[in-house]
Amino acid sequence: MTTPAYVAVDWGTSSFRLWLMAADDRVLAERRSGEGMTTAARLGFAGVLDAHLDAVKAPADLPVIVCGMAGARQGWIEAGYVDVPCALSAVLDGAVSVPGTKRDVRILPGLAQRSGTPDVMRGEETQLLGALSTFGDGERHVCMPGTHSKWVHVANGAVTGFSTFMTGELFDVISKHSILAHTLAGAEGSDAAEFGEAAEAAFRQPALATNFFFGIRAAQLLNGLGPTAAQSRLSGTLLGLELAGAHAAAKPGTAIALVASGRLQSLYEAAFQRLGLEYATIDADDAVRRGLAAAARSIWPQQQESHTA
Amino acid sequence: MTTPAYVAVDWGTSSFRLWLMAADDRVLAERRSGEGMTTAARLGFAGVLDAHLDAVKAPADLPVIVCGMAGARQGWIEAGYVDVPCALSAVLDGAVSVPGTKRDVRILPGLAQRSGTPDVMRGEETQLLGALSTFGDGERHVCMPGTHSKWVHVANGAVTGFSTFMTGELFDVISKHSILAHTLAGAEGSDAAEFGEAAEAAFRQPALATNFFFGIRAAQLLNGLGPTAAQSRLSGTLLGLELAGAHAAAKPGTAIALVASGRLQSLYEAAFQRLGLEYATIDADDAVRRGLAAAARSIWPQQQESHTA
Repeated sequence: MTTPAYVAVDWGTSSFRLWLMAADDRVLAERRSGEGMTTAARLGFAGVLDAHLDAVKAPADLPVIVCGMAGARQGWIEAGYVDVPCALSAVLDGAVSVPGTKRDVRILPGLAQRSGTPDVMRGEETQLLGALSTFGDGERHVCMPGTHSKWVHVANGAVTGFSTFMTGELFDVISKHSILAHTLAGAEGSDAAEFGEAAEAAFRQPALATNFFFGIRAAQLLNGLGPTAAQSRLSGTLLGLELAGAHAAAKPGTAIALVASGRLQSLYEAAFQRLGLEYATIDADDAVRRGLAAAARSIWPQQQESHTA
Repeated sequence: MTTPAYVAVDWGTSSFRLWLMAADDRVLAERRSGEGMTTAARLGFAGVLDAHLDAVKAPADLPVIVCGMAGARQGWIEAGYVDVPCALSAVLDGAVSVPGTKRDVRILPGLAQRSGTPDVMRGEETQLLGALSTFGDGERHVCMPGTHSKWVHVANGAVTGFSTFMTGELFDVISKHSILAHTLAGAEGSDAAEFGEAAEAAFRQPALATNFFFGIRAAQLLNGLGPTAAQSRLSGTLLGLELAGAHAAAKPGTAIALVASGRLQSLYEAAFQRLGLEYATIDADDAVRRGLAAAARSIWPQQQESHTA
C-alpha cells in the first residue's frame, strides 16, 4: 500500500470532505459528511476531524491542510483574509497553524475585497489555486456556483476582483418561505425548456427579476403551471439574473471558466449554452484537491519528498 | 346622527378594514383588524364580518361592498378576474353576490393579465378606481407598493397592462431566512443615507442586485456595518431593483402616480427623489375607500338616493 503523505480537508458551512493523499497527489481514501462548520462548531472541530482521520487510519504524524469555513471567525480558528488584488500564491503564505493539536494542522485564509462592493470568500480561493494550472497565464472570468456563487477575475496568476451572487440561497429561501412555496410544492426533476426560457428572459431584462418571480405564481393561477415547471422557472430566473450581473461586471471577451460538478455544473452549462456564452469546465472536486495539494507541497516540502523517496 | 348608506370592506391577505359610510361617502365609523383572508378562512368569513358589523351597529339591511383577497379562490367566494386591457369600470360590472347571507354582500373581482408576463391583482383595482378621478383622462404609471408591489399603466380610464414586483415579500424572507438575518438582527429605525445609496446603485445596475445583497454581509464582516444600516441597504437595494424594472417597462415620459400611505409612502418618495423621478402621491386609504364608494354607487343607486333624500 502507498504511504500517505498528507491529509486534505475542504470544510464548508454545511459539508465536510477529507482525502488521504499520497505524495504524488493520488487519493488513497475519501470521507464525506454533513459535519460542516455549523455542526462542527457544536460537536467540536478537533473531535470531528479525529474521527474521520481514525476512519481512514491516518498515521499520527500525518499533517492536515484545511480550507473553507473552518477558518471563519465562527469556525475552528480564524484564518483571516488575504486582500485582493493579490497573487493567488499569497494564500499559501497565509496558512494558520491550529494550536493544541497533536498533529500539524493548517487552515488556509480566505480572500477579501475591500474596495468597490465589499466581498469575501473561503474555500473558493483554494479551488482557484487548483484550477490555476489549467488557465496558464491567460485572463479568465471564473464562475464557481453554489449557495453563494463566486465570479472571479483572474489574470497571470493574480486575482484582481470578485463578486458573490446569492443565487443558491435565494433559490432556497424563495422556494421554502415565499408565496412560491405553494406553487413549487411537489416539484420533481426539472423542465429544461422552462429553465432555459426563464434564464434568457432574466439575462435580457434583469431588472424584471422579481416581476418574473411573481409571474410564476400568476402562471399557476391563470394557466395551471405545474410545480416542476415553476421550480425550473425560478431556478432559471435566478441564474439568468446572476449571469446578467456577472456579464455586466466582466471585461468584454474574457473567457469563462466554470469550476463546478454534478447538478450545478449541468445547470450552469445549460444556461451558458442557451445564452451563447463560451466557457470551459473544470471539475470542482479536482480543483479543490489540487489546490490543497499545492498548499501541502508549499508548506511541507520535506514531508512530501521523504514519502516520495 | 347621519344614517349609514352602505359598508365598505378592504379584505386583504393579512388585514381587514371596514368603514361604515354615509350616502355622501363620509366615514361614520371604522374598524381595522388582523383578520385577513388567512385568519378569516379559519374562523369563517361571515362570522368575522358580522362581528365587525355589530361593533359599528350597522342596520340589518345595510349592503356591504368588499374588495381584496376575500374574492380569491381560497377566500370567501371566488370573484374571478377581469382581463386586461379593460376599462376600470368593468370591475364594477363583475361584482359577485355572496349567497346565503342575510344582507346584500358583493365582492369585486380582481384583474388578470394573460399575455406577456402573467399577472394578477386583487384589491389594487379598487384603489385604482378610487384614484382614477385624480388622473382624469391622462396617462399614468401607477405605483401601489406593498408585499407585492403593483405598477399599472392607466390611460383614459383603462388599464393597458401591469407588473407585480415581489419587493416587500423578498425583504421579509431575506431578512428572516437568509444569511442576512444575522447581519440585520437588532436593527432599529432606518438610515436614510444608506437606503438612498443602495437604491441608486440597484437602480443603475439592477443585474447586480443579489451581489449587493451579499455585499451587505461582507460589509458587516470587513467594515463592521451595523444592523440598521444593513437593513436600510437591503430595503434600498430591493426598491432600486423594483424601480429599475418598472422604469424599463414604462413608456418614457409617463407621469408616476404613487398610491401609498404611511411608511411605504415615505420610502418610495425618498427613492423617487433620490433618483430624480417625478411623481404625485395619492393616499392609499382614501383611494380604496373612494373605489369602494364608486362601486356602491354603481351597484345600489336607489339605496344611496333614498338615504340622501
